[in-house]
Amino acid sequence: MTDSVGEGPEIVNAAGQGAVVLVCEHASNAIPAAFAGLGLAPGDEASHAAWDPGALGVARAMAAALDAPLVAATVSRLVHDCNRPGGSPGAMPPLTETIAIPGNRDLTRADRADRARRYYAPFRDALEAVLAARPGAALVTVHSFTPIWHGVPRAVEIGILHDADARLADAMLVAAPFRTGHVVARNEPYGPQDGVTHTLREHGVGKGRLNVMLEIRNDLIAGDAAQARMGVMLAGLVTAALAGLGQGAAP
Amino acid sequence: MTDSVGEGPEIVNAAGQGAVVLVCEHASNAIPAAFAGLGLAPGDEASHAAWDPGALGVARAMAAALDAPLVAATVSRLVHDCNRPGGSPGAMPPLTETIAIPGNRDLTRADRADRARRYYAPFRDALEAVLAARPGAALVTVHSFTPIWHGVPRAVEIGILHDADARLADAMLVAAPFRTGHVVARNEPYGPQDGVTHTLREHGVGKGRLNVMLEIRNDLIAGDAAQARMGVMLAGLVTAALAGLGQGAAP
Repeated sequence: MTDSVGEGPEIVNAAGQGAVVLVCEHASNAIPAAFAGLGLAPGDEASHAAWDPGALGVARAMAAALDAPLVAATVSRLVHDCNRPGGSPGAMPPLTETIAIPGNRDLTRADRADRARRYYAPFRDALEAVLAARPGAALVTVHSFTPIWHGVPRAVEIGILHDADARLADAMLVAAPFRTGHVVARNEPYGPQDGVTHTLREHGVGKGRLNVMLEIRNDLIAGDAAQARMGVMLAGLVTAALAGLGQGAAP
Repeated sequence: MTDSVGEGPEIVNAAGQGAVVLVCEHASNAIPAAFAGLGLAPGDEASHAAWDPGALGVARAMAAALDAPLVAATVSRLVHDCNRPGGSPGAMPPLTETIAIPGNRDLTRADRADRARRYYAPFRDALEAVLAARPGAALVTVHSFTPIWHGVPRAVEIGILHDADARLADAMLVAAPFRTGHVVARNEPYGPQDGVTHTLREHGVGKGRLNVMLEIRNDLIAGDAAQARMGVMLAGLVTAALAGLGQGAAP
């Protein structure tokens, strides 16, 4: 840890005036040089353990379609998962489903606090500022998931996830059959019980802000064209849902 | 008041096994003989002041499409409005927008209690029993409104009304643009502030039961064919909304 400054998120379309603020916590698989690759085995930094492949491309397409700002992390979630509480052990795991992260073993409390200060705090603060400037905007986070988990293929293609405030998720689930042939499911393949709704809880639930987390199976968004198509479809789905809730423009 | 028994509601399709229970509080304009027509001027008993023209036909079509039981009042709301608290002055008004109801003037508390006992209590109890047998069913009430109110034409065609629990209304408002070209609006032409959500509050809100009140402009449901068409459309809309909420069959 010799670098003296943290890396804040990228903010795409920062002047966006749409009814949505987008977030991509797992946009990047970059590991700052000071971490020496976290000791990963060759190739592991490209796996879904390090980031959400395709999610940033989808989120960028949504940002364009919705005229929405997008707050995207610029470091791997293995350095600090920005969808976990700042400095928490789960935000920098030593093991995932498929890989070991030697650089995350034996972290002291001070190590974790340092990572939170460098990578989580700037992300949280930037998102908070973007949201504060848009009191009526809905919060939409964009993720991808691997098609095979512990050896079992997953049938769900798009997950619409929520924590205690289900309004936007409910509305998207209602509109989904009219707008896509994909297999869409509530709180799949993860749900709030898995600890994945940190951003929703921190910035949406309890503040009365409409919020939802989207999970896209990553085999469906391999490549720019597929990401653009998915992003446009999801933007339409969000818009239809918000219109039904009396928010945003008509679909 | 010489009749010794009250008139309970009609229960259509009492064995219905669908995911919905339907209610039509203003299904009838019948005034029991003992009330001597409540002293209405000729023709007033046919007006929307006495009932919701067309609502029963729509509700019957929905009951068939949804395999839903339907609890429908068999006396005019001028005798006792079953969508108002039992025995309340507002449940038997002496004046409405357009007509005078001489038989509702100078009612004593005992008169009102007697009407509640005869007409409201059997309605409430029957509905409660139907609902108790179907813990997971949603409550949907069906009403109609006049196209001109105090001289002003109303643009809204279908109102989707809710009280504190907006889940089903939200979902229907999301699905509506995909299923109808009608002008659909939230809490129009009335809303909870107008005291029209009594049935929803009594039997839905607070019991965690999904609930919604539908208001259809009565010029759109003049005649059997129009009522059947509207009923089928609304049944589809309810089904799509419930499916999105994870309830009932898929649309």
